[in-house]
Amino acid sequence: MIGGRRPLQGRKAGDRRVRVERPHAPYFRYAGPNQLIAREAASVPRTARGRALARFRQIVFGRPLANEEEIGERLSKRKALAIFSSDAISSSAYATEEILRVLVLAGASALFFAIHVSIAIALLLAVVAVSYRQVCRAYPNGGGAYVVARTNLAPIFGLIAAASLLIDYVMTVSVSTASAIAQIQSVFPVAYDFRIEIAFVSIALITVANLRGLRESGNIFAVPTYLFVGLALAIVAIGAFRIATGTANQVPLEHDVVPLGTEAFGVLLLLKAFAGGSVALTGVEAIANGVPAFKPPESKNAADTMTVMAVLLAILFVGLTVFAVAFGLQPTQEGGPSIVALAARTAFGEGSPLFYAFAASTALILFLAANTSFNAFPRLAAILAEDSYMPRQFAFRGDRLAYSWGIVLLAGVAFLLLWAFGGDTHALIPLYSVGVFLCFTLSQIGMVKHWLRGHESGWRWRLAVNAAGGILTGIVLAIVVSEKFAAGAYLVVILVPVLVGMMLFISRQYGRSKRQLAVDPAHIVSAPKREERIVVPIHGVDRATIQAVNVGRSIDDDVRAVHISDDPEDAARVRKTFERQIPGVPLVVVDSPYRALAGPLLAYLDVLDAAWPPGKLEPITFVVIPEYVASSWWERLLYNQSAKSLRKALLGRPHTVVVNVPYRREDQEASSPPRAPEAENEADTAAEG
Amino acid sequence: MIGGRRPLQGRKAGDRRVRVERPHAPYFRYAGPNQLIAREAASVPRTARGRALARFRQIVFGRPLANEEEIGERLSKRKALAIFSSDAISSSAYATEEILRVLVLAGASALFFAIHVSIAIALLLAVVAVSYRQVCRAYPNGGGAYVVARTNLAPIFGLIAAASLLIDYVMTVSVSTASAIAQIQSVFPVAYDFRIEIAFVSIALITVANLRGLRESGNIFAVPTYLFVGLALAIVAIGAFRIATGTANQVPLEHDVVPLGTEAFGVLLLLKAFAGGSVALTGVEAIANGVPAFKPPESKNAADTMTVMAVLLAILFVGLTVFAVAFGLQPTQEGGPSIVALAARTAFGEGSPLFYAFAASTALILFLAANTSFNAFPRLAAILAEDSYMPRQFAFRGDRLAYSWGIVLLAGVAFLLLWAFGGDTHALIPLYSVGVFLCFTLSQIGMVKHWLRGHESGWRWRLAVNAAGGILTGIVLAIVVSEKFAAGAYLVVILVPVLVGMMLFISRQYGRSKRQLAVDPAHIVSAPKREERIVVPIHGVDRATIQAVNVGRSIDDDVRAVHISDDPEDAARVRKTFERQIPGVPLVVVDSPYRALAGPLLAYLDVLDAAWPPGKLEPITFVVIPEYVASSWWERLLYNQSAKSLRKALLGRPHTVVVNVPYRREDQEASSPPRAPEAENEADTAAEG
Repeated sequence: MIGGRRPLQGRKAGDRRVRVERPHAPYFRYAGPNQLIAREAASVPRTARGRALARFRQIVFGRPLANEEEIGERLSKRKALAIFSSDAISSSAYATEEILRVLVLAGASALFFAIHVSIAIALLLAVVAVSYRQVCRAYPNGGGAYVVARTNLAPIFGLIAAASLLIDYVMTVSVSTASAIAQIQSVFPVAYDFRIEIAFVSIALITVANLRGLRESGNIFAVPTYLFVGLALAIVAIGAFRIATGTANQVPLEHDVVPLGTEAFGVLLLLKAFAGGSVALTGVEAIANGVPAFKPPESKNAADTMTVMAVLLAILFVGLTVFAVAFGLQPTQEGGPSIVALAARTAFGEGSPLFYAFAASTALILFLAANTSFNAFPRLAAILAEDSYMPRQFAFRGDRLAYSWGIVLLAGVAFLLLWAFGGDTHALIPLYSVGVFLCFTLSQIGMVKHWLRGHESGWRWRLAVNAAGGILTGIVLAIVVSEKFAAGAYLVVILVPVLVGMMLFISRQYGRSKRQLAVDPAHIVSAPKREERIVVPIHGVDRATIQAVNVGRSIDDDVRAVHISDDPEDAARVRKTFERQIPGVPLVVVDSPYRALAGPLLAYLDVLDAAWPPGKLEPITFVVIPEYVASSWWERLLYNQSAKSLRKALLGRPHTVVVNVPYRREDQEASSPPRAPEAENEADTAAEG
Repeated sequence: MIGGRRPLQGRKAGDRRVRVERPHAPYFRYAGPNQLIAREAASVPRTARGRALARFRQIVFGRPLANEEEIGERLSKRKALAIFSSDAISSSAYATEEILRVLVLAGASALFFAIHVSIAIALLLAVVAVSYRQVCRAYPNGGGAYVVARTNLAPIFGLIAAASLLIDYVMTVSVSTASAIAQIQSVFPVAYDFRIEIAFVSIALITVANLRGLRESGNIFAVPTYLFVGLALAIVAIGAFRIATGTANQVPLEHDVVPLGTEAFGVLLLLKAFAGGSVALTGVEAIANGVPAFKPPESKNAADTMTVMAVLLAILFVGLTVFAVAFGLQPTQEGGPSIVALAARTAFGEGSPLFYAFAASTALILFLAANTSFNAFPRLAAILAEDSYMPRQFAFRGDRLAYSWGIVLLAGVAFLLLWAFGGDTHALIPLYSVGVFLCFTLSQIGMVKHWLRGHESGWRWRLAVNAAGGILTGIVLAIVVSEKFAAGAYLVVILVPVLVGMMLFISRQYGRSKRQLAVDPAHIVSAPKREERIVVPIHGVDRATIQAVNVGRSIDDDVRAVHISDDPEDAARVRKTFERQIPGVPLVVVDSPYRALAGPLLAYLDVLDAAWPPGKLEPITFVVIPEYVASSWWERLLYNQSAKSLRKALLGRPHTVVVNVPYRREDQEASSPPRAPEAENEADTAAEG
């Protein structure tokens, strides 16, 4: 055997063939000895079908992006606001209603207190927002509550936060899609019959947009968010003007409203209303989870965006609540218009273009609330995967720098949830708050510990803010859990530990195999002393067999072929042909009266091992298996069934290595390298010289 | 490298360790130099879990059977009659009704002609049975119409026959299961709500029984068949007695009957009635397809069984028709009792034990009609697979000598059909006849050509019988197709060519790869002259990497490691560690800014090939990939994703061989060989000496 290393550079001068002169040029840039940088061409598929598929992928998802293009994919504050706050801002579309629906139980006079409740929630929002501004600055790599709790409290609290966030993100996608469809349905009742199809299409569109990457999804999603914000602000402004001018009259009731109740008005009811309205805070944490998606300076931009979002949300939420109280809007019976729809009608007049524009933008921002999860879930999953708490694939970024696995998993689970609930996921809405407030509480407590350790400038008032926030969100959490436990919150209480358990399990798996695979850094590997032995299972004498035997012989001379057969006559024929045509290689024929293939081969290898002289180090056994190169699914059915089962059986065997020798029909398309991009060849001549 | 061949026999004398002395004894019997016979122990799984699974399989399916035990699995005539004729005989339960339902269109007087029609069909049955007796003798390897048409006419006619038979067998399973459930349902209406579940359970039971093997399924299925035959014969005998004694009175109508029609009575109506009743002949071909399942002398036993079956069927069919006419039984509206149920009530009296026994045995024989298909379909598929018209797996026999693939495919497709039709496959009944009569016609024409070529004794009258049969069945085929075309027969007309096309396609695939793989028998293979080159893709320095590099170095000295990375800093660290710990092996670092793995590796291999001196034969490239030995599905998710995609990409590359080096965590259960069966060790000492 000749061989020896052949360095890439240093070809003999005067060779006239350009390709051989600088063979790496089409695929790689030369960056130093044994150091190459792959061009885009290196990843172009080799077959015509593969290239066609890649072209299709590029049309749908866009051209592949290099790592260095990542910075160009970062978000401006304007786009980030649209991407990360559609979930939070969209909650102003239903939070007021949640308050009114509780207060209405205590009669008309209680409705007035909605204003107080909404202001209390806005204050809580301010505390949470200030706290998350600090998280943005302290933890610029993102991860939000997970990282804060893991770093400051203990890993287990980080995992609890992560699990509840992951669950929340999935529910957000299902619930906001279902709400958007309900919104459409109130205009076009026929939409009800196609709700699963509409859900599928809208989730698929959001998935594709997110697989295309951040910046583009920002472009797509900015318009409806700003449209909703603008129109909702207009409603609030009109309301304020009419209240100021004393023209805020009670709107006549045109729909069946929820009948006024006679419950006692008291602290308990106010707390309930507070817990119901606190759904307005869901989605607030998204920005802190996604700091690395911002343009530099990341932390500052994220914190600023957080402030803008909190202010907008507070104005919309409190404004719409005041509007509803001032105009005497009341929650309607099932099927009737929502409070925001009534407000829009009151402000713009029924049937006016602005009314319809607002209805449409409400539906759209509810669809887009799902998009917040599509940004937050994959990022959190990637951070968890990097910390070995989720399968590694979640940390891989696809062609467009998006975390493809997380995006696809989220889309799949959310759609399944919608499908399982028949498109009506209303029952899930209260469950949100559990996960969100769990995270709020954990991250506030974490921040308290952060300030206790850090003592940065102003740490005293920061600590006070976080402590107050932690206590408040903790109280809300307690209320939400106790209020909604039977209604479904118990599901979260069950699911969170299950997810945490899974993540701990995965982490232990990875940790164990990492320890087991670790090598002493002082250990210097010398050339191996093991002997080899080659076994070639054959089914007859053909080109594939000959190729496999030849590959075996080029590894070592100790080659034997094994023919396992359930037909002794056929076996005798095979032996005759083999011994005549492939002389010098012993053939062992194993009669297998039970028609098994893998079992007798494994047993034969055991026999070889047992026959090895005792005391001598066992050799490596190379089992050479011809494998047909299937070019389609039906070929996979027609060929390789035996090769596959042998491979599977042998992979479990110590000191055994499986060598797959591919064979193909000659009429199949050979895998040819794609044509080289000529243009770039000049660029790196200098680097190479 | 040492190595050299190590023959199994000839160990140095005086070695005290018994296992090393005769290491093959637990697994193999020694049958000559390099010739072993596997014992059952050789196929015993290596892991505790595998062994537990095997034990479970043995409980459900029985212990594995060796090839030589096949003869013990053969069927006596008594069992064969039960297994192969339940389909044909069960058709006497509905064929009479099919005739009456046509004739009733022409009023009460037309019903009398049912007797003439049934006798005509019985004559046709006689012709077909005589013809198939001859097929049994002429083609003792089974295959029925397929083999007859392929041998005597042309392969394409054989495939047409095979395709229509395969379709028929699937429909038989669905339809007879649905009919049996309908029978149960007429006694227990609640069964309707569980019809899919009942269908699943009954098909699953028949599947398991057939996977256990022929003889045992004969034991299970003989009782109900003989019970049905006995009770039906009793009905016929009671009818004959009462007709003879003049006590055959018109039965009063207790159910809504199909109203008498006023269509003109004539040849067309008779032909329609004939076509309807000819459903009695379905299933007749099963015995001729399964000749090898009989005890020797196979052909004679099969022919005798064919005669008994035909005589029984003729008696039951004509007898029940005469009974129905004599007692004035009329077809009822949907939901009412069937003609045989009415006959049983008339003969045994409603509510008598015999009446219920007959109802039960009717349901059972309808379930068992499916069993005929379970015997015929896998056998036909195996014959087709041996002729390369179906994937090879269909010719493999499982542990119990049953054609497992065919059995499972039939069960799966038939259940899907039932499920798709919501458990009501009544619409498929008329479609049967198309396939069956197509086969009859083809095999009769085939036999005509057979006699023309053979000129055996008596060939003239045999030829006359087959010619007459061919013409008659051809006419019936034409009637059935034209009558039922719109009702669904067009499906068969579409499906048969599709299946034939698939079979031709598969045959061309196998034929092509066989030709391509064929080697000149005169060619003597000499040692290879190819050089080798080893490439080890690594992700870092750990035990798995070191193992892979060492395996590579034991193949040849020309080893290089390649690290493909999307993180230049990490890559620099890997290079430092690698060069320090594994000196002497060059490491090429490829920066992959698009995060692709397989593409840059393939491109690098292309570069190596291009750098090879022109004119010199390209070397074999061994790509050594470490592969984690996953012991469960979740481990498969956590590990090996990269190894899998690399393997897939590389298998398409010419001159490239993939070497899988397994690695495992040390705490995993090592695959230990099962304990050797000590008892058998004595037996082959003599053979070895």
